[in-house]
Amino acid sequence: SRSIRLAVIPGDGIGQEVVAQGLKVLSAALPQDVKLETRSYDLGAQRWHATGDTLPDAELESLKDHDAILLGAIGDPSVPSGVLERGLLLKLRFAFDHYVNLRPSKLFPNTATPLAGRPDIDFVVVREGTEGPYVGNGGSMRTGTPDEVATEVSLNTAHGVERVVRDAYERAKARPRKKLTLVHKNNVLVHAGHLWKNIFDRVGQEYPEVSTDYLHVDAATIFFVTQPERFDVIVTDNLFGDILTDLAAAVTGGIGLAASGNINPSGAFPSMFEPVHGSAPDIAGTGKADPTATVLSVALLLSHLGYGDEAARIETAVASDLAERDAAAPRTTDEIGDALAARVSG
Amino acid sequence: SRSIRLAVIPGDGIGQEVVAQGLKVLSAALPQDVKLETRSYDLGAQRWHATGDTLPDAELESLKDHDAILLGAIGDPSVPSGVLERGLLLKLRFAFDHYVNLRPSKLFPNTATPLAGRPDIDFVVVREGTEGPYVGNGGSMRTGTPDEVATEVSLNTAHGVERVVRDAYERAKARPRKKLTLVHKNNVLVHAGHLWKNIFDRVGQEYPEVSTDYLHVDAATIFFVTQPERFDVIVTDNLFGDILTDLAAAVTGGIGLAASGNINPSGAFPSMFEPVHGSAPDIAGTGKADPTATVLSVALLLSHLGYGDEAARIETAVASDLAERDAAAPRTTDEIGDALAARVSG
Ligand SMILES: CC(C)[C@H](C(=O)O)[C@@H](O)C(=O)O
Ligand SMILES: CC(C)[C@H](C(=O)O)[C@@H](O)C(=O)O
Repeated sequence: SRSIRLAVIPGDGIGQEVVAQGLKVLSAALPQDVKLETRSYDLGAQRWHATGDTLPDAELESLKDHDAILLGAIGDPSVPSGVLERGLLLKLRFAFDHYVNLRPSKLFPNTATPLAGRPDIDFVVVREGTEGPYVGNGGSMRTGTPDEVATEVSLNTAHGVERVVRDAYERAKARPRKKLTLVHKNNVLVHAGHLWKNIFDRVGQEYPEVSTDYLHVDAATIFFVTQPERFDVIVTDNLFGDILTDLAAAVTGGIGLAASGNINPSGAFPSMFEPVHGSAPDIAGTGKADPTATVLSVALLLSHLGYGDEAARIETAVASDLAERDAAAPRTTDEIGDALAARVSG
Repeated sequence: SRSIRLAVIPGDGIGQEVVAQGLKVLSAALPQDVKLETRSYDLGAQRWHATGDTLPDAELESLKDHDAILLGAIGDPSVPSGVLERGLLLKLRFAFDHYVNLRPSKLFPNTATPLAGRPDIDFVVVREGTEGPYVGNGGSMRTGTPDEVATEVSLNTAHGVERVVRDAYERAKARPRKKLTLVHKNNVLVHAGHLWKNIFDRVGQEYPEVSTDYLHVDAATIFFVTQPERFDVIVTDNLFGDILTDLAAAVTGGIGLAASGNINPSGAFPSMFEPVHGSAPDIAGTGKADPTATVLSVALLLSHLGYGDEAARIETAVASDLAERDAAAPRTTDEIGDALAARVSG
């Protein structure tokens, strides 16, 4: 009989609440014969305050022993900026070589967008997850003095770029429009930019059915708001992907709907799925958090583990739920989770 | 009698056409007793193709001997990416220590915005212009092989950050809302980010009348489309400023209206004013280019040189011209320039 060993990191703020709904919908979606084993990890702001730990080695080791990880949200204003991001979130992405950071953006019917005219938006950003300015290779000298110098080094390797570019071509090839856009800033960041562009062009020769184009990151943000329907698959660097996917979330109904997967396609390490939003401490405990982004992240998780039909059922359930939402009658986190679980099992 | 010695770099594509209108409006705006001397520099794609020069030392020296520089647009698809950007545009910004890259964003009445509900947008981005990932400090080894490693180094100094932050506080203090937002990514780029944040907080103590906040760059892009009215003055790093100002231009009527100043506030070197848009070779020579961004850049130039009344007259002229535009009856580049010049002298 089949089984899924799932590690769960609820984290901070609304993380707990949305993860509970994600698990609810996951259980509802899974076939009867699949055994779901979950193990919860107490990581995040509270743990750090209590013990000073962000992600101890023993827990990192134990996390490895799972098929996938579901993460809610990490972060709290009481923790100095960077501590949990670098010590926990990014540590996981780097330790588990999550080189494909997958972020689909779709404007569902009946959801709010700040864009006039409601363009047709349905693209996916393949953000590199293990290189670029995120590597943590920087420092500062004469810190705190008028002579301080601080650096941040963006590291980019042919190995790292090629594997994510290849993944993006595969995804583009599998979609009806078969279009791939590289976003970078190769007119200024010429060394990293040329590496990306050369590999993008070379690998592209193996995918004659995929049409390609290139945009500078600044120009890409313009098209995100004036012509988002032009995008199908986008491949980009870690930092540009961070910026673009928040903007993409904003134009497709907000961060409350944006799902993501931190994927190690080789399967050497468990992949991790998390909503793009943060821990939103201002609404934690109020029942106002929308669990939809987490539920959609569960769909990405299922699809990654080979449960494509179940993933599709969740996506359909979300689309129907959104289509029938009444802005005048908001529901609680729990009610939305129940409604989605009911649709998925129904 | 007063005089302005202006260096003009029309550049490529529509650069020539829009600069001609900028000069027309400048002449119309200047008081009779001010003598305008212009000298034109043939720099850009054509020159590079003909001679291989981007910006020879002799011309760099000669440019210094001016009160300001007006630049149209630089770039052509026939030139490899980075050659003119690094060799000419950025070389000027760095050589003349243009540490304040000033980019106002205002949604004028009757202009198109992709945003539903037409929010009230009136903010200015103070983008650092001489540091960050733009310094050109990077390289690549084993170039073109499967083992290539390419780096880009972001350099940030207390000196460089403090002067631009201070400039931004001064600008915020002079505006009715007196609000300054720092945008960075200090939860990931911790060294550069902490340098920026510490200086921002410390200098802020000298400006108790200015209210401040901090946003990560990814979150800032969300607010640009969901709540742009929240911004008054934004101060940010060179690369984040590049991305944010294109997005800002997109939500305030498009890149055809976005002006910018590359300013050396000390006056040690001439400041340079240029539209944010590029050379748009696809519409060069068709008369379709909108010279408004260049005309607004001329207003920034005048204001920088102490001609505040004349700058204000140009801004009023642009606002009236935009208010009376009829989308069904587009005008040529020249007609728009004539109309603006007439309003300014009228
Ligand atoms: C919290 C932060 C480290 C993270 C990132 O920058 O990648 C977040 O913004 C995201 O997009 O997942
Ligand atoms: C052309 C390029 C070098 C430039 C930049 O990146 O600064 C442009 O995008 C701008 O914003 O002025």
